[in-house]
Amino acid sequence: MAQKMKAAIFVDKGRIVLDEKPIPDIGPLDALIRITTTTICGTDVHILKGEYPVEKGLTIGHEPVGIIEKLGSGATGLKEGQRVIAGAITPSGWSHACLCGCGAQDGAGTKHGWKAMGGWRFGNTIDGAQAEYLRVPDAMANLAPIDDGVSDEQVLMCPDIMSTGLSGAETGQIKIGDCVAVFAQGPIGLCATAGAKLIGATKIIAVDTVPTRLEMARRMGADIVVDYKQENPVDAIMRITDGRGVDVAIEALGTQSTFESALRVLRPGGILSSLGVYSTDLTIPLDAFSAGLGDKSIRSTLCPGGKERMRRMQEVISSGRVDLSGLVTHRFKLDDIEAAYDLFANQRDGVLKVAITP
Amino acid sequence: MAQKMKAAIFVDKGRIVLDEKPIPDIGPLDALIRITTTTICGTDVHILKGEYPVEKGLTIGHEPVGIIEKLGSGATGLKEGQRVIAGAITPSGWSHACLCGCGAQDGAGTKHGWKAMGGWRFGNTIDGAQAEYLRVPDAMANLAPIDDGVSDEQVLMCPDIMSTGLSGAETGQIKIGDCVAVFAQGPIGLCATAGAKLIGATKIIAVDTVPTRLEMARRMGADIVVDYKQENPVDAIMRITDGRGVDVAIEALGTQSTFESALRVLRPGGILSSLGVYSTDLTIPLDAFSAGLGDKSIRSTLCPGGKERMRRMQEVISSGRVDLSGLVTHRFKLDDIEAAYDLFANQRDGVLKVAITP
Amino acid sequence: MAQKMKAAIFVDKGRIVLDEKPIPDIGPLDALIRITTTTICGTDVHILKGEYPVEKGLTIGHEPVGIIEKLGSGATGLKEGQRVIAGAITPSGWSHACLCGCGAQDGAGTKHGWKAMGGWRFGNTIDGAQAEYLRVPDAMANLAPIDDGVSDEQVLMCPDIMSTGLSGAETGQIKIGDCVAVFAQGPIGLCATAGAKLIGATKIIAVDTVPTRLEMARRMGADIVVDYKQENPVDAIMRITDGRGVDVAIEALGTQSTFESALRVLRPGGILSSLGVYSTDLTIPLDAFSAGLGDKSIRSTLCPGGKERMRRMQEVISSGRVDLSGLVTHRFKLDDIEAAYDLFANQRDGVLKVAITP
Amino acid sequence: MAQKMKAAIFVDKGRIVLDEKPIPDIGPLDALIRITTTTICGTDVHILKGEYPVEKGLTIGHEPVGIIEKLGSGATGLKEGQRVIAGAITPSGWSHACLCGCGAQDGAGTKHGWKAMGGWRFGNTIDGAQAEYLRVPDAMANLAPIDDGVSDEQVLMCPDIMSTGLSGAETGQIKIGDCVAVFAQGPIGLCATAGAKLIGATKIIAVDTVPTRLEMARRMGADIVVDYKQENPVDAIMRITDGRGVDVAIEALGTQSTFESALRVLRPGGILSSLGVYSTDLTIPLDAFSAGLGDKSIRSTLCPGGKERMRRMQEVISSGRVDLSGLVTHRFKLDDIEAAYDLFANQRDGVLKVAITP
Repeated sequence: MAQKMKAAIFVDKGRIVLDEKPIPDIGPLDALIRITTTTICGTDVHILKGEYPVEKGLTIGHEPVGIIEKLGSGATGLKEGQRVIAGAITPSGWSHACLCGCGAQDGAGTKHGWKAMGGWRFGNTIDGAQAEYLRVPDAMANLAPIDDGVSDEQVLMCPDIMSTGLSGAETGQIKIGDCVAVFAQGPIGLCATAGAKLIGATKIIAVDTVPTRLEMARRMGADIVVDYKQENPVDAIMRITDGRGVDVAIEALGTQSTFESALRVLRPGGILSSLGVYSTDLTIPLDAFSAGLGDKSIRSTLCPGGKERMRRMQEVISSGRVDLSGLVTHRFKLDDIEAAYDLFANQRDGVLKVAITP
Repeated sequence: MAQKMKAAIFVDKGRIVLDEKPIPDIGPLDALIRITTTTICGTDVHILKGEYPVEKGLTIGHEPVGIIEKLGSGATGLKEGQRVIAGAITPSGWSHACLCGCGAQDGAGTKHGWKAMGGWRFGNTIDGAQAEYLRVPDAMANLAPIDDGVSDEQVLMCPDIMSTGLSGAETGQIKIGDCVAVFAQGPIGLCATAGAKLIGATKIIAVDTVPTRLEMARRMGADIVVDYKQENPVDAIMRITDGRGVDVAIEALGTQSTFESALRVLRPGGILSSLGVYSTDLTIPLDAFSAGLGDKSIRSTLCPGGKERMRRMQEVISSGRVDLSGLVTHRFKLDDIEAAYDLFANQRDGVLKVAITP
Repeated sequence: MAQKMKAAIFVDKGRIVLDEKPIPDIGPLDALIRITTTTICGTDVHILKGEYPVEKGLTIGHEPVGIIEKLGSGATGLKEGQRVIAGAITPSGWSHACLCGCGAQDGAGTKHGWKAMGGWRFGNTIDGAQAEYLRVPDAMANLAPIDDGVSDEQVLMCPDIMSTGLSGAETGQIKIGDCVAVFAQGPIGLCATAGAKLIGATKIIAVDTVPTRLEMARRMGADIVVDYKQENPVDAIMRITDGRGVDVAIEALGTQSTFESALRVLRPGGILSSLGVYSTDLTIPLDAFSAGLGDKSIRSTLCPGGKERMRRMQEVISSGRVDLSGLVTHRFKLDDIEAAYDLFANQRDGVLKVAITP
Repeated sequence: MAQKMKAAIFVDKGRIVLDEKPIPDIGPLDALIRITTTTICGTDVHILKGEYPVEKGLTIGHEPVGIIEKLGSGATGLKEGQRVIAGAITPSGWSHACLCGCGAQDGAGTKHGWKAMGGWRFGNTIDGAQAEYLRVPDAMANLAPIDDGVSDEQVLMCPDIMSTGLSGAETGQIKIGDCVAVFAQGPIGLCATAGAKLIGATKIIAVDTVPTRLEMARRMGADIVVDYKQENPVDAIMRITDGRGVDVAIEALGTQSTFESALRVLRPGGILSSLGVYSTDLTIPLDAFSAGLGDKSIRSTLCPGGKERMRRMQEVISSGRVDLSGLVTHRFKLDDIEAAYDLFANQRDGVLKVAITP
């Protein structure tokens, strides 16, 4: 009889509860990870609220740090007992999407090999990381060892928000000397701000209204912060840039308002790098898009995953180039994850990210 | 007293008339071109209908073929009497936008050097090419000689629709073996179809409904044509691609319908290359955009200009790689340009492009 | 007791012989392919001559077309009985190199995951394709189905020379209107010529001396051919380009002479795309490299592999964009492969490529 | 009669002397700059030693900071009295090379518009900046205003070594998490080290032997320094990288030894970014180049110029992202420039860069 474990399960709209489930079985390419630390993501809150649909009974969570408990028979190059992380997105490596350089959109089951979000499996199409154990598919492509002496919390942002945030800067193709605006300074936006600085932007304008987030934005590299409740952010940014606009605008919230502002402050030829998860149709205003004649680009990015990405994220942390240690503001035991959801979903007590330990 | 010339002038919404104007004076970096052939563009029809605003009294037209009548004192490397073309967009070369690789958005007058469409000057912010004479600014950056033995009509598409259409394929970053859909097969769309073939797409799906345009699309390189009145084009393309969608979708009309269809047929990670001139806000449907999680890009492009671009367009023509000779369906004298507008604006008699000769 | 099969085996310098070997066993991620057609590559001749070292007893060959005889227990998405090809290079998909977009340099065994040529395994580090049966590692990443109605010979060039030749054009980042020189018109060079045309070069200069190869170069897309025994090819190309040089030069032989000529005809800012397998150190002449101040690049490429690449190569063939049918000039049974080597290694009888059928 | 000025003039091999010359006349697109600060470059020492040929009587120097004394009649958008810098390389903006995105190779005089180093004019093909006055050609494309409150010395590195050094990182296409080796830590190498950090490298290995340079390398961003007299740098780097090699190797000296070492430590698929000015042919060892099968690239870069580049360099300085203030180790009056050459050419007294003020 299968052994049991605790897991945070989506029961119904508004209800994620801690319950018991069998410890997962694994196949030949899989690994079973004993979770040592995980966290809650804004996307999980979308699931909780019923804004993003998943199957009832699914274990939630896509940010695993843990130890390899068991390896599939075909999974070579790894060892049981290793400390590892896996990205939120788990490309197989061998799909058409992966071999095309678009692993986040992996979807091995379709005829030609991909569908949107195919690569996001944990807590979306298969059981996730807010549990005592996690089955990781395609372990060889996804498990990245953690160096000794590095704590779980130091790498806890790597699987999702750090990889996503930095990709916002990368997809924006930021160049040395660029001026960049980042709309919203939640965890993803803060990492986008850090990413913009990491790759050479020299004027970074961070937009939010929560004082602690604006303060953290400065620590992450923002040169100027704009409180959108004090001044219309489009006006502010056009003033700051002498009417020129920004080279790259990063959207990190997922609303029409931030999307539209990002487009409006973009100089001709600039790139709007979109990270947010939207829940409505979007409108592109004719003037903000220069009637299609402004050489503007809108590029959306899903969190890049895979072990090589995780290796690089860890290099950024261990080199000290980016310091995300301030992002974990609260800590909970897995037993108390419902309280953690309550705090996080309601953004109480200045919460940025929570650490969950089984 | 300044000598007079004939020119097609925007008088008011609905009225472009042939009238007399002084032959333009030129400055030190300019050239005066005696126009030998020019044409009418869909954008000129937008101007005629009052959908795109220009000043009353402006000479229309942005596709010049002609002979250098007079050179400014500072314009070196050119000779009076040379046959030349200039692009519809005339980058200065020396602006910040140009030096940033974004010459189409040149706008030398602004503080930091650019504004949307700054590089489109002919028939937009200065007098255009539907006249006996044309002042070309920044002549050294913009005038490209025409080889002997090449006719005016052979290069007449280079300044705008060929450069624009091909850029649709380039901006789409088409790769060898890509599947590409091109929405609308007017002159720009036909050139986009030709461009997709020119750079390695192996399955090109052209969408339109006019039989002669679908037939021409095949000649330009379309492997499959879809008549959108016979079948919903999204359904058709998903069927043709076995549900996978296309790698690149090119929008070449400027409507919500084609824009939305282009986004819907795009595979995750694909690029929507937008060429159309829009006249309304656009809607991005949430599902078509995968809620922002599909790694999809929307990239708009304004016609690339400058003499190096014009040199390359001519190389494409003279090498025989692309044959646009079928696009000129009607010919008019400048004296009859009002009739030409009437035919072209109403798309009568199977017109694709008209040649106008002073 | 293992069943036996026939295989072409490297015995010693100068000796590749047909002999019996056990049919390979397969692991969980492998597939066993029954070869229906294969070929001999110039690299195999290097092996034969002892210029490229492999272990004695190794089965040679890296260009397999065949039928899946048996699938490993972990290999999903494929069916026994399917007709397939695999690339000469077999990336695993899950290595660091693969996840970095450099699958040809896969090398799963090293600590961080790659070493030079790690992805070239068939007939190099494991038994190859000149045999009745072939073990294909990482089958899910490497086996690409062949469409019904397409013959073995039609796809026989896909695994190596077509993928390599086209990559020469891709690595050269050929742009619309580029002028390109291709040095040597053996099978790889001919495919590079075809690739240059496929992605938009408008003036292609092919260099060789064998009349049938120059003739075939024209069929593949060369606009001008240069017989290097009739005229110094550097002089010829500088004359043809009015002293400007070429935008991209492709080296497709692997000698100092062709490498140096390619560098000399390259315009400042141009790219030398190197495909050849060299057997000596190379010299970069100071003047040809403009003392390091010419913005010149030298980029080498190993044949891209993997099933997505093979799918794309097949699309190129089936779309009719490139016609390589003329490249197979001779046909042999596997039983006669020693004669095939003799013909091919000595380039007798106008041989370009041979088809070998077990 | 023309007024006179002082200028450092190349008289003969081994002799650069201060002498009198007429203040330059200017043409319609030129500006006359009154130099307030300039410097000496390693390339000037090559000229002094006769290793790089220039005409006798030429004024040397290509790093100008000054004030616009007089503007040509056609030069708009600038004002007499403005403080400005110009890059060492002065692209025209309107040449084919510029319009192709390769302005450093501008060469307006040739038929199709470029030749190697065509864009390097100051102190190479026209009189340079080590003088009281300097004629700047194509002023509109080249003069970048200096912000009030910024000192001459703060921007003195922008025209050449900063632009060159940073381009070494850019041409190497450094990605987040890359490991980079920089060979030689003279002024260019130090700026390359700073550039590697600026755009996201997380492990930077700097190679030199002079203690003050290794110390300065750490200040610029090196994580690890290697003294090549203490340990073979190839061995050291392979040890540091666990045998993997570096993603990008930057050559910043111009010798066979550093070039070869850079190639040897490069991982398969990596980029050797070459900045050095070589004075001999180079050898590519067969093994270091993996016989052409290692997907390795060698890319050389000439200092990017033009006013947009200068604007961006100034943004890097004013944002505090890079601090080059420690590079100016010595200061001289123009009257004492011969002593400055003596110190700099012999690298006495720990000199990195000298500031020269007329």
